[in-house]
Amino acid sequence: MSETLKIGVAGLGTVGVGTLQLIEKHYELIAQRCGRPVLVTAVSARDRRKDRGLDLSAVRWFEDATAMAADPDIDVVIELIGGADGPAKEIVEAALSNGKHVITANKAMIAHHGTELAQRAEQAGVALACEAAVCGGIPIIKTLREGLAGNAINGIYGILNGTSNFILSSMRDTGREFGEVLAEAQKLGYAEADPGFDIDGVDAAHKLAILTALAYNCEVDFDGVHVEGIRDVTSLDIAFADELGYRIKLLGIARLTNGGVEQRVHPCMVRKDAPIANVEGVYNAVVADGDFVGSLLTEGEGAGAGPTASAVVADLIDIARGVRLPTFAVPASVLDRRPSRAMAEHWGGYYLRLMCVDQSGVIADITAVLRDEDISVESMVQRGRGPAGEAVPIVITTHETTEAGMTRALDRIAALDTVLESPRLIRIEPL
Amino acid sequence: MSETLKIGVAGLGTVGVGTLQLIEKHYELIAQRCGRPVLVTAVSARDRRKDRGLDLSAVRWFEDATAMAADPDIDVVIELIGGADGPAKEIVEAALSNGKHVITANKAMIAHHGTELAQRAEQAGVALACEAAVCGGIPIIKTLREGLAGNAINGIYGILNGTSNFILSSMRDTGREFGEVLAEAQKLGYAEADPGFDIDGVDAAHKLAILTALAYNCEVDFDGVHVEGIRDVTSLDIAFADELGYRIKLLGIARLTNGGVEQRVHPCMVRKDAPIANVEGVYNAVVADGDFVGSLLTEGEGAGAGPTASAVVADLIDIARGVRLPTFAVPASVLDRRPSRAMAEHWGGYYLRLMCVDQSGVIADITAVLRDEDISVESMVQRGRGPAGEAVPIVITTHETTEAGMTRALDRIAALDTVLESPRLIRIEPL
Repeated sequence: MSETLKIGVAGLGTVGVGTLQLIEKHYELIAQRCGRPVLVTAVSARDRRKDRGLDLSAVRWFEDATAMAADPDIDVVIELIGGADGPAKEIVEAALSNGKHVITANKAMIAHHGTELAQRAEQAGVALACEAAVCGGIPIIKTLREGLAGNAINGIYGILNGTSNFILSSMRDTGREFGEVLAEAQKLGYAEADPGFDIDGVDAAHKLAILTALAYNCEVDFDGVHVEGIRDVTSLDIAFADELGYRIKLLGIARLTNGGVEQRVHPCMVRKDAPIANVEGVYNAVVADGDFVGSLLTEGEGAGAGPTASAVVADLIDIARGVRLPTFAVPASVLDRRPSRAMAEHWGGYYLRLMCVDQSGVIADITAVLRDEDISVESMVQRGRGPAGEAVPIVITTHETTEAGMTRALDRIAALDTVLESPRLIRIEPL
Repeated sequence: MSETLKIGVAGLGTVGVGTLQLIEKHYELIAQRCGRPVLVTAVSARDRRKDRGLDLSAVRWFEDATAMAADPDIDVVIELIGGADGPAKEIVEAALSNGKHVITANKAMIAHHGTELAQRAEQAGVALACEAAVCGGIPIIKTLREGLAGNAINGIYGILNGTSNFILSSMRDTGREFGEVLAEAQKLGYAEADPGFDIDGVDAAHKLAILTALAYNCEVDFDGVHVEGIRDVTSLDIAFADELGYRIKLLGIARLTNGGVEQRVHPCMVRKDAPIANVEGVYNAVVADGDFVGSLLTEGEGAGAGPTASAVVADLIDIARGVRLPTFAVPASVLDRRPSRAMAEHWGGYYLRLMCVDQSGVIADITAVLRDEDISVESMVQRGRGPAGEAVPIVITTHETTEAGMTRALDRIAALDTVLESPRLIRIEPL
């Protein structure tokens, strides 16, 4: 058996502790599967005295993670600190420039600096691996980089954020509104005190940008992702979706179009019988559509100590086995720099919900605007009258049209005197 | 860019043609992803004159595939002939002993001779890869060997045979009986003229034996798989399953138990809301349950030219990239030789359907037998009386018990005068 692979772990939060526990529990198993032992020999975290339920007596403690990243007796640095910039990035850069392999679960850092860091890793002749950065335990990076490597990818989409999916699932199950369900999710520990990254779509967009780079062998382009979250989804829209045969899911979608790769994260209407529609709660799922393989769905736990540690250690085992593959499937130097397609060029169907004065002529005004923009109505639902003077919902679904035309139409509709609230728009995805 | 990887393909059936088409169509893509070109330079098949819709003018043709396997100008042999023994095995052995990497889609050969062939490959220092042998386009071998390599696998189960799943799905959708639906599946090309391998569970058992070896790092033990097919599933059982909240699926299941690894393929009752229950038609799906990752489901097309070619080429790209991993995740020399647990020791719940004379005392007799074997009844369904003298179905579900006890009980129940047909037994899986 060849020599021990020595690991330094930076960051001992939930995932860091889970990773140490996994490596300790499966020491024999991992050694057998790698043909060599894998050992955590150093760690670095903020507070040495904190009780983490781990025996760290045999492990070197570094106050300064950057010093650990330079230590000659460490082969691999696992970065589990988080944050796009700051200490995480400094440590990763230090480790790479010291010729150490790097494993990270840091989606923000890879989404913002992935191309540059991959270049550094390749210059240093080491691996930069980030399976744990996307969808926790689902080995979607390996699947795209290797398992589907014989395919041109037509599209990839998924439920990339478990918190948002839990909230949408709960809203549908209970009929309650967003704010109430978010508060409950926070109590249960499924949502952070500051939930913005999750519910505003940013976390999903980080993951999508990484998946896009892998699927299309292009530079990571986080700024090219169109991002909308779920704050504006109401129980009324969920009920209408149900009536129309849809469920509302926050999806990340990357698709090759004539105008480039389209990257977008937003609430979607998906048919109830689509497999992705039935992924509930905190689960994540990704569907990759390849030109030979067809449609491949993978569903699993997208976060948490165990699943994320599983992904970290999968990268570690690859490194211990001598597998060296570029971060984004092809060398960073040959990654395409193709501009993401602007959202205005998006082509698709739409669900619109308008709250209108209940009087004659309202629908004529609205449909005239749609006609002017050449938008064809697929269905319209108008409810019986409510109490006098109260706004009534009008729901319209459209055939496929351009986002630009829809935006113009909605501006004009919103300006009508008979339309009382901001129109709500949810895109319909034919998955 | 380094030198061209030269491929010889043995067997030009559907999958062979699909593989050649993929490698030709994605020549540039594959070269970019591998850092070197990959080229089919030789083929071998029975009939040279047959029109396969391929231009083979630039490719060397071998009448004798074994000669191709010895040709010094070939780096990788792709075996797509099929059959556990005979020409396929000869070619693979020849290729390995000539120091060539081998890729195969041949599940029967790997199920029967996998351990021995893996040893030969390792002695020769080459790769033996068989992603395409299990579930077509689903990269489940890579997922077990690499993506989940940090986990101890508690269990793995799946819909491993699309033909059987198509037939069971169709029976449920149409209410028709097995024979009629099989004939239709044969007409549609979803079932072979000789359907035994598919509908008798053999094909699924081949795949399960391979997955078991990967999940538990043990020698391939096809003979240790308990195999039952779907010929005895009736529309009546499907209707009762529906009433009880179940669907009937042909599953392959491998599970670590106190008595060793249990390997079994048989029709199962699974809860309607289990994700695997909703995998319909010709789709395959595999669920792996790891101690850190939790439950991971992958669903995709399990057969056909495109998906299978995708898997073959994934192995090819691994080889071209220099990835060399043991066939069953650890070197063949350290594969465990653990006996599969005997089916008599299986512990689980059961669905029983009996066709009985409609007279008093029948249920008392049956439940007395179950009591004697310490089998606890969970539910019982007895339908209102039919025409006089006609057998009426009695359906019993049991709490968990041993297979041995259930077998003894069923023998005694079958011998009762009031029980008119062979009892039907379907195991209930709490997935």
